[in-house]
Amino acid sequence: MPEPDSVPEPYGVREPDSVREPDGVRVPDALPVPLLDQHCHGVVAADLDDDAFGALLTESDRPPAPGTSPFDSALGLALRRWCPPALGLPAHADPAAYLARRRSLGPAESTRRLLAAAGLRALLVDTGLTEASGQPLLPADELASLAGARVREVVRLENVAEALAARAPRAADWPAALRDALAAALRKADAVAVKSVLAYRHGLDIPADRVSDAEAVRAAAGFLAGPAGRLADPVLLRHLLWTAVDLCARRALPLPLQLHTGFGDPDLTLHRADPSLLTPFIRAVEPTGVPLVLLHGYPYHRQVGWLAQVFPHVYADTGLTLSHTGPRAVTVLGELLELAPFGKVLFSTDAYGLPELYLVGAAQFRHALATLLGDWQRAGACAPADAAHLTRLLSFANARRLYGLG
Amino acid sequence: MPEPDSVPEPYGVREPDSVREPDGVRVPDALPVPLLDQHCHGVVAADLDDDAFGALLTESDRPPAPGTSPFDSALGLALRRWCPPALGLPAHADPAAYLARRRSLGPAESTRRLLAAAGLRALLVDTGLTEASGQPLLPADELASLAGARVREVVRLENVAEALAARAPRAADWPAALRDALAAALRKADAVAVKSVLAYRHGLDIPADRVSDAEAVRAAAGFLAGPAGRLADPVLLRHLLWTAVDLCARRALPLPLQLHTGFGDPDLTLHRADPSLLTPFIRAVEPTGVPLVLLHGYPYHRQVGWLAQVFPHVYADTGLTLSHTGPRAVTVLGELLELAPFGKVLFSTDAYGLPELYLVGAAQFRHALATLLGDWQRAGACAPADAAHLTRLLSFANARRLYGLG
Amino acid sequence: MPEPDSVPEPYGVREPDSVREPDGVRVPDALPVPLLDQHCHGVVAADLDDDAFGALLTESDRPPAPGTSPFDSALGLALRRWCPPALGLPAHADPAAYLARRRSLGPAESTRRLLAAAGLRALLVDTGLTEASGQPLLPADELASLAGARVREVVRLENVAEALAARAPRAADWPAALRDALAAALRKADAVAVKSVLAYRHGLDIPADRVSDAEAVRAAAGFLAGPAGRLADPVLLRHLLWTAVDLCARRALPLPLQLHTGFGDPDLTLHRADPSLLTPFIRAVEPTGVPLVLLHGYPYHRQVGWLAQVFPHVYADTGLTLSHTGPRAVTVLGELLELAPFGKVLFSTDAYGLPELYLVGAAQFRHALATLLGDWQRAGACAPADAAHLTRLLSFANARRLYGLG
Repeated sequence: MPEPDSVPEPYGVREPDSVREPDGVRVPDALPVPLLDQHCHGVVAADLDDDAFGALLTESDRPPAPGTSPFDSALGLALRRWCPPALGLPAHADPAAYLARRRSLGPAESTRRLLAAAGLRALLVDTGLTEASGQPLLPADELASLAGARVREVVRLENVAEALAARAPRAADWPAALRDALAAALRKADAVAVKSVLAYRHGLDIPADRVSDAEAVRAAAGFLAGPAGRLADPVLLRHLLWTAVDLCARRALPLPLQLHTGFGDPDLTLHRADPSLLTPFIRAVEPTGVPLVLLHGYPYHRQVGWLAQVFPHVYADTGLTLSHTGPRAVTVLGELLELAPFGKVLFSTDAYGLPELYLVGAAQFRHALATLLGDWQRAGACAPADAAHLTRLLSFANARRLYGLG
Repeated sequence: MPEPDSVPEPYGVREPDSVREPDGVRVPDALPVPLLDQHCHGVVAADLDDDAFGALLTESDRPPAPGTSPFDSALGLALRRWCPPALGLPAHADPAAYLARRRSLGPAESTRRLLAAAGLRALLVDTGLTEASGQPLLPADELASLAGARVREVVRLENVAEALAARAPRAADWPAALRDALAAALRKADAVAVKSVLAYRHGLDIPADRVSDAEAVRAAAGFLAGPAGRLADPVLLRHLLWTAVDLCARRALPLPLQLHTGFGDPDLTLHRADPSLLTPFIRAVEPTGVPLVLLHGYPYHRQVGWLAQVFPHVYADTGLTLSHTGPRAVTVLGELLELAPFGKVLFSTDAYGLPELYLVGAAQFRHALATLLGDWQRAGACAPADAAHLTRLLSFANARRLYGLG
Repeated sequence: MPEPDSVPEPYGVREPDSVREPDGVRVPDALPVPLLDQHCHGVVAADLDDDAFGALLTESDRPPAPGTSPFDSALGLALRRWCPPALGLPAHADPAAYLARRRSLGPAESTRRLLAAAGLRALLVDTGLTEASGQPLLPADELASLAGARVREVVRLENVAEALAARAPRAADWPAALRDALAAALRKADAVAVKSVLAYRHGLDIPADRVSDAEAVRAAAGFLAGPAGRLADPVLLRHLLWTAVDLCARRALPLPLQLHTGFGDPDLTLHRADPSLLTPFIRAVEPTGVPLVLLHGYPYHRQVGWLAQVFPHVYADTGLTLSHTGPRAVTVLGELLELAPFGKVLFSTDAYGLPELYLVGAAQFRHALATLLGDWQRAGACAPADAAHLTRLLSFANARRLYGLG
């Protein structure tokens, strides 16, 4: 992914005519930089009924409250701003018109158009989720083809442990078997990173220290004797993290560990997903050289910014947050950039299920960053060259450096 | 309360000539929608001296620090922006001039003018407070008449329990007596909701589970043996909540439970009023169908937004916060709307003691919402029809639906 | 420090021609009010190499992450905005050009120019830090002379206790010896305040109550038996705070106690520096009359605002935060002013090591406040006289009153 040779000035403010709609509504600002989406998921290939579509517009896994619509939200506004033009409708088309148009084009054509409009150069896909709203997700290679983007994989740690448990190993073998299973998963996926959903399974308030094999075996005995499925034992979750850290640290360029922090679905308890709670673990990981990428973070993204400033191995993500905060994304991105070093902030969409969320994520990021940097320049806070530099860093250069992508 | 037939476009940006003052300062934007104030209190009928007036301009119950004035605050600026015109003074009149004018008009005329200027259609009044600055509050029917608004009552739970304790029941009878007292209070008030001040009495960090009658009886024995008054025992507070939830759930349209969250007077400890701490209780209440209305929330209003997004029975309030944050209300309202579904955000003033706080609350909400939606439209983030829809939802439609008001 | 006789109107919006650079970039708005910096540190006199300079641009004490520059941050942008003009370069000069120019002028001349450009009238210097990036800091009198400002001292409590420990007293004598040592330190420095770094040594989550002499002696025995140096025992830290409170309370105008809260270097754990955790201690100190100045606060500055509103003896600081948040300082200052009474907010730079940080701190404050108040006036939220009044309060009048400065 070579960097573009020349960058027009003033940067981040330019609004090419070609991205204006006839009715004067702007589609995503076409900043001439590639985007590297450092955290995303697959999309549903099948047609979705209105309820299934709406269910993917919220972090809730419950039906909407009586009398309310999932489109009545900041994310709903963002979707109606950026997606209708990709399907040939004016921006802000109403939900019924949008859903009708999507259905008439069919899911394949809609998906193709939406992913193409997102303009992503490369995707780092967390392959740990395999369905959304009860429908299977497209495999990574099909996603790559539709999006016209390179795809690399991120291995979700809890899936590896649960797949191991499903093979019913002896508890005494758990530590070695987990190491082997994880190493195999990384090899098979040619993974660029691993990911933890500790925030969902327990909360980020874990002790810092490594788990001994003896402790892990004891905890594994309990887990393996229980009902199959979900790994939620805090000792095994921590043991899994350290097993991953040790494997990641072996590489010449250590593999990053991505961690969900901040808001998500109601399976988590928000204050226990405050990334500051991870501080003891962050300190303990530091000597290994394994980078920690704190995903999402909202509403604790200022805490993420501080952690990224003071710990060299901590990085900050923009995904999910900029999509969900809709018209407010400019400010929220600004809040992250208060303390986070510009060399450590990484773009992502965290798109999941709906191809719309790829376009929304990319457009929200491009628009929020361009607006923010335009505001900063108008206020005299930075020069055009600074805006261009910062745009390159966040859009792709930081992620390319961190993940060692060519 | 019928919805207006037609809504002028562009909505939320219109500034009718009739609301401009001769000196060019705008009084509250006259959006042509009614306001339903879903959480407020009575006002003092008597004249107040300057110190008593000032004491009602802050959440503190202490005298101001030496050398400082209670008017030197964001709320003080908001009061001086919106209230002087209602008493025939220019906006931003200085405190001494304002207080002198108020005194010369007399409290009855000032109250009438201020409440009329607030332009509220209906008030849901928490009748649990009966005085402010040592003066009695007007009863609900007199408030209704002065404000030209319908009034409905919200029953404060802790008052019911303390009134029961004052009748010295046997501890063994506490669970049944409390159920009866609460049912009677709801009937007598023809209540539209109940309210808890758990945040003041203990903090929101309570276990989720119901309290057995045996536990409640044990705790009641301690409470009834102690000095009369304030209910602060965490077991009894939780038992009271569950008693209320069970009564509220019996209705065809379950009665909402309002909970104080976030900032308030120094009787509470702020981080223990973080609404995320309520999550276990929120999860436990979900199957009952009883809506939970998280009041205030600031500075944890983004947490409120997430809870309202992921739990169908959780609703978010704007009261107190928009008044107290003065010139910053536009941004703070924007922060709440980042994650909170637009169908679940409810206007209130939380006015208490001063009729000024009704006008300030209404004007701050109207102005903040109109400014925010104007900004969003100018930035291309939503269409005029979206702004009109969102204004109707927050101003009255969400509350009318939630409380089943005709 | 007399108040200026007349204040031009409209205030906080004026941009005199004399502060415009030829290239149209504005240097700090020259509001005609003096600044009283209520919390700062010494600067390095020696030349600094690029790495040592960069190390003072971040709260991290680690080397920057591979491939990143410490100038790529909000603080880096602020430095490049405000400092190059003081050294004869255009604003936004690139880092290499700036460092080269600084080196060619030499550290003495650069320091003189930067401190003079900051335009500070008086400095309250925490003398507890004696070096930065391995270089000694200028003593307070030399700093005063270079800055053209009066300097008064703030005594750092932990230093006094550690110096006492280095003299190896008997544990049984600890309480009396500490009282004597602290009283002597206050006399010697003619101190205007004391300061605690409890947030670094333990966290703000301490019990409220005083430590008995017996408890202190027991804890001192452990501390004195251990390796020399850092005081981190929570009992001794609390005993130190109460010893200080009791000494501060004896004055006719009680000496304020400054407390580090919120972000800082990686020695602290962020969520344990939430100032709301101090609430029990704040309540316990209230009867003594000793003011508590909550420094920094970010990202918990809204919590600081609430504490300052509801507790008469709590004050709020702007330092460190406005420098580090760079282009976002306007908003962050606005957030503090949502609940904090305007009579209790105090300007500071928290400058340390680099004379640049004095200029950045002063310029960021002046610019953020002027911009905020200009925005408020344009939006009709306050009158020009209010903006002038608020500027005087925050810039010097609140601090002059609190610290009893003539």
